[in-house]
Amino acid sequence: MTLPRLTEARAPLTRAIEAVNEHGQRESLRIPAERDLTIYIDKRELVTLMTLGARPEWLVLGYLRNQRLVASPDEVESVTVDWEVQSAAVKTRAGIDRIEERTARRVVTTGCGQGSVFGALMDDVANLRLPDAVLTQAQLYGLLNAIRLQESTYKSAGSVHGCALFRGEEMLVFVEDVGRHNAIDTIAGWMWMQGLDTARADADRPFVFYTTGRLTSEMVIKSAQMGVAIVVSRSGITQMGHQVAQQLGLCAIGRAMNRHFLCYTAPERLVMQPELAARGSQG
Amino acid sequence: MTLPRLTEARAPLTRAIEAVNEHGQRESLRIPAERDLTIYIDKRELVTLMTLGARPEWLVLGYLRNQRLVASPDEVESVTVDWEVQSAAVKTRAGIDRIEERTARRVVTTGCGQGSVFGALMDDVANLRLPDAVLTQAQLYGLLNAIRLQESTYKSAGSVHGCALFRGEEMLVFVEDVGRHNAIDTIAGWMWMQGLDTARADADRPFVFYTTGRLTSEMVIKSAQMGVAIVVSRSGITQMGHQVAQQLGLCAIGRAMNRHFLCYTAPERLVMQPELAARGSQG
Repeated sequence: MTLPRLTEARAPLTRAIEAVNEHGQRESLRIPAERDLTIYIDKRELVTLMTLGARPEWLVLGYLRNQRLVASPDEVESVTVDWEVQSAAVKTRAGIDRIEERTARRVVTTGCGQGSVFGALMDDVANLRLPDAVLTQAQLYGLLNAIRLQESTYKSAGSVHGCALFRGEEMLVFVEDVGRHNAIDTIAGWMWMQGLDTARADADRPFVFYTTGRLTSEMVIKSAQMGVAIVVSRSGITQMGHQVAQQLGLCAIGRAMNRHFLCYTAPERLVMQPELAARGSQG
Repeated sequence: MTLPRLTEARAPLTRAIEAVNEHGQRESLRIPAERDLTIYIDKRELVTLMTLGARPEWLVLGYLRNQRLVASPDEVESVTVDWEVQSAAVKTRAGIDRIEERTARRVVTTGCGQGSVFGALMDDVANLRLPDAVLTQAQLYGLLNAIRLQESTYKSAGSVHGCALFRGEEMLVFVEDVGRHNAIDTIAGWMWMQGLDTARADADRPFVFYTTGRLTSEMVIKSAQMGVAIVVSRSGITQMGHQVAQQLGLCAIGRAMNRHFLCYTAPERLVMQPELAARGSQG
C-alpha cells in the first residue's frame, strides 16, 4: 500500500499568559494553543477545525477516515499543512466520489452538544463487527498507570482532552487536542500511517482506547469503526453512548482513575481481579 | 412584542443503569438522558441536536438566536416539540431570509473540537459592544456559592454541563445539558422569552454567565452576543477564548471554585477584595 506523503508542520503547543488570582496577585501561566486549520480536498474547501496543532497531518487524515470520506490511506496522495496560512491541502489520487452529497447531511452530536458529523454514522452501527478482545483488570490498571505517568500539555496547561491507544497495557500513541474528537481522529490517522490492523490483535492483548472525555455515542462509534472493542474513560457515559455500546457489545469503562472504575457494558470483555482493587486501596 | 408560543414537552432527565465496579460488584447508578431532536423550520429540516431535553423549546429558540438565523423572538410564531417523533417544528411568521446560503458555511469549533456554527460568528466580533459591568469579588463568591448549592442532574448523574445566568450574585436561571453549547443556547432562548435586556442592567449588578465548561472562543462570543460582559467558569480557558475575550474587553474568569479563581482578561471589570480570599481559606 502506498501511504500518503505528509508534511511535519510544527507549532508551539502552549502559550504564556498572565492572570490575576483571588489574592489580587499576578500569575504567569500557560494555556494550550488553539489554531484554526481549514481543510481543502483537491482545492475544494471542506471544513475548518480548531486544533491544538500537535499532529495536524494525522488529524486531517483521521478526520477524513472517521467522516468516511476516504476508505483507505492509499486514496490520499498527500496532506500538506502550512501554519502560515492555516490550511491543510489534501490531494487525493482519484478524487472523492459524490463529495457534495456526502457532506450535506448534518448531525449535531453530543461531544459538545453541537458537533458536526457528515453522513450518518449511526446508520452503519448495525454492520460493525468487533474483534474478540478481553482485558484483565491488571492490564486495565497498567494502562491507567501509564496515563498517569504520561507527560502532557494537560499537566502544563490544562484545558485539553487526551486520547491514547493501547495494546494490552502498552501505550502505542498518546494525543492531546483542544477537542476530544480531534484527539481520536488524530489517532485514527496515525493508525492508518502505521498500517495497524486491529482485527489481527491477540484477543488477550486487545487494542484499547483511552479518553479523558465522556463516553458519548460518537466516541463509541468511532472506536468501533476503528475495530477497537474496549474504551476506557476518566469521565462518565451518556445515554446514547451506553445504548450504542450495548448494541455493539463494546466494553465501555468509565470513571477510571487509580484503582476505581465502572464497567458499564459488555462485562464479559473484562476479566475481574477484585483482589487487585483491594490491594491498591491499602497501598 | 408578540412572543412565540412554546409547547412544554417533558421527558425524564436521567436513566438508571447497572455497572460493575472494581470489586466485581454490581452497582445501580443514574446517567443523564440524551435524545436527538431534529429542528424543522417551516417544514425544512435544519439540524439534529443531541440534548438532555430539559427545556427543548428554549434550546431551539436559543439555537436559532445564537446561530443568528432569527434576529428577534417575534419572528417566531411557535416552537412545537414532540418527543414521540423527536422533532421540534418551528413556525416563523415570515420565513427566514436566504436560509440556504446562511447555513452553508461550516466552522468546526473548539467546544468539542468539531462543533458546527452556521455563518461566521467571528466576523462580527469587532462590532460587538459590551455594557458597563463591574463585579465585586464578594459577588463572585456569592455566585459560586449559589452554584454549589444548586440541585442538579450533574449531582445525581454526572456527565452534563451546567450553565447559569446571574444578575450580580442572584441566579436567574440554571440549565444543564449533555452539551455545553446546548446549555448556553437554552439560556439565550429563555432570555428572549423573558424579554431580558442585558444592556439595561445596573453596572454594579451586572449580568454574569457561569459555565462548567471551558472558556472557548465560542462561549465567549455567545456571551458577548447576548450582551453579557463577564463569564465565569470552573474550567480553564483556551487560546482563542483568551484572544477573543481580550479583543472584546470581556472579563473571563476561570478555575473558579470555592475561594479560588483566575481572572484572565479585563481585570478592570472585577473589584478585587483579597481579604475575602484570605478569610475563606481560614474558614
